[in-house]
Amino acid sequence: MHSFEELSAVFSGKFSERHFPNEPSSLYNSTEYFLGLGGKRIRPVLCLMANELFDEIHADAWQVATAIELFHNFTLIHDDIMDRAPLRRGMETLHQKFGESTALLAGDVMLVKAYDYLNNIQSSHLKNIIHLFNKTATEVCEGQQLDMDFEKKKVVSLNDYLRMIELKTSALLAASLKMGSIIGGTTIRNQNLLYEFGKKLGNAFQVQDDYLDAFGDPKKFGKQTGGDIRSNKKTFLLIHALETCTAAQKKELLHQLKTNAEDKTEKVLSIFRDCKVDEWALYLKNKFLDEALSHLDEIAVVEKRKEPLQAVTHFLVQRDY
Amino acid sequence: MHSFEELSAVFSGKFSERHFPNEPSSLYNSTEYFLGLGGKRIRPVLCLMANELFDEIHADAWQVATAIELFHNFTLIHDDIMDRAPLRRGMETLHQKFGESTALLAGDVMLVKAYDYLNNIQSSHLKNIIHLFNKTATEVCEGQQLDMDFEKKKVVSLNDYLRMIELKTSALLAASLKMGSIIGGTTIRNQNLLYEFGKKLGNAFQVQDDYLDAFGDPKKFGKQTGGDIRSNKKTFLLIHALETCTAAQKKELLHQLKTNAEDKTEKVLSIFRDCKVDEWALYLKNKFLDEALSHLDEIAVVEKRKEPLQAVTHFLVQRDY
Repeated sequence: MHSFEELSAVFSGKFSERHFPNEPSSLYNSTEYFLGLGGKRIRPVLCLMANELFDEIHADAWQVATAIELFHNFTLIHDDIMDRAPLRRGMETLHQKFGESTALLAGDVMLVKAYDYLNNIQSSHLKNIIHLFNKTATEVCEGQQLDMDFEKKKVVSLNDYLRMIELKTSALLAASLKMGSIIGGTTIRNQNLLYEFGKKLGNAFQVQDDYLDAFGDPKKFGKQTGGDIRSNKKTFLLIHALETCTAAQKKELLHQLKTNAEDKTEKVLSIFRDCKVDEWALYLKNKFLDEALSHLDEIAVVEKRKEPLQAVTHFLVQRDY
Repeated sequence: MHSFEELSAVFSGKFSERHFPNEPSSLYNSTEYFLGLGGKRIRPVLCLMANELFDEIHADAWQVATAIELFHNFTLIHDDIMDRAPLRRGMETLHQKFGESTALLAGDVMLVKAYDYLNNIQSSHLKNIIHLFNKTATEVCEGQQLDMDFEKKKVVSLNDYLRMIELKTSALLAASLKMGSIIGGTTIRNQNLLYEFGKKLGNAFQVQDDYLDAFGDPKKFGKQTGGDIRSNKKTFLLIHALETCTAAQKKELLHQLKTNAEDKTEKVLSIFRDCKVDEWALYLKNKFLDEALSHLDEIAVVEKRKEPLQAVTHFLVQRDY
């Protein structure tokens, strides 16, 4: 059995090899640039860990893990175009550096390459894996569309927001785990438990992300806080505040959403604290975390084998009491 | 055996059924709109015909044909974004009507849906078909990138232009035929002959397209002529003219490329005629057409079965003597 850190190091090494030909360089310099920006490679490593939960890691799992990471990068490239984001991991986004048209094509060709890696696996799992991969890819696109739709809406319900997050973020984590478990040769029941584990883990991770952007320590969080508040991003926090605060607090919140005042972040955070959104977010995160771990508990495999996945869960989502 | 027209009618009927769910409607209204714009459905029908060249049409061929047409529409949606095209078949392009971000996602989700249809075919052909599909999809992306690169270049050689056309246009025609022949259960040799037939047919078709845009009868051609000349598009005609005309003609041609004068089309056409570019283009088209037909001739199957493909060849590319 391997830890997340061990598998992450091995996967990152393998993944850093070139995936595309040299020519046309006007296209493939851009894909190499983007893949070279790095990342924690969480999804592919979860796939490998889900395989190892049941059996030694099969060669197919490396193919699927590579496909997953390429798919994830495809979504980042296209999302950056849609968000008009200038930076990704502190570096220029692909479209910023190479132009929008090349970014569009680079994403397209990266998605196709993902299917190339999938197509390398043994035939007995191929249909099953491609089916789940397609379902997930479709969900991620739908989640991104909903995210854009929500930007234009005045009010988004917590349920609708959660549904969007499950499509845009959690579905791929869940599917990465399930694909690994399919290759691990386990039962449908165990596969589905891992899927649900991944979905709840994704939800918990997103709540934590929304929480840290507002209340995190910039030194520990690794980026400036308050970005979501300044850009009026609909988050778990803002949506819950609007749904539960008093009429006076809501009025003030809606007023703040229309301003760009110096003290906007401070004012919004103060309302969040007044209506205990911070406590609620920690409660919600812990709830998703508990649900995730209970799905992992239920999986019919010796407890010892679950330890690496339990450890990575607590690495990705810190428990707050 | 069926004619192109018969299969086109049946395929169009089947293809007009809904491919996507209803929600999120902000995404899927756009895909339905675009697919509803119609088209001749040449590629999927060639796939069906290639199957029928060897055997009765198998259910799998309909799945692959649907995947091919969805893939083709995905490329049109993304190409229209890159070209900033306002119209497609006389109607608003997808990005013009629904916005660029939705167009980007609509293309993505359509490509994924194409793989969904591919994944419906019997396992014995799945790997082979997906491999060819991926190779072709990659080539189409590379061709589009080269096409954009060429726009920025002063000089493009005829060989480079032909290579671009083979990637961007001919590869998909060739692969559509080869996929049908794989499902038809024929030999590798026959599969490859059909691929080469499709490639030369695609080349001939593109030469004809470039020719008609300059010299066609607008009434018969169905659209305004001279568009390529007015937009300085590098075509078979312009590239050959620059490579073969006299120094004086070349100077005048390069001068015209810099102007937007009223008589630009007329002047450029006059140079084209002076250096016999029109005759050369017809020669080149006939050469590709002959090569295509000779590959078809070589295929080891009774002559009678080739008649529908011979007929569609002459329907798509008229012979000029």
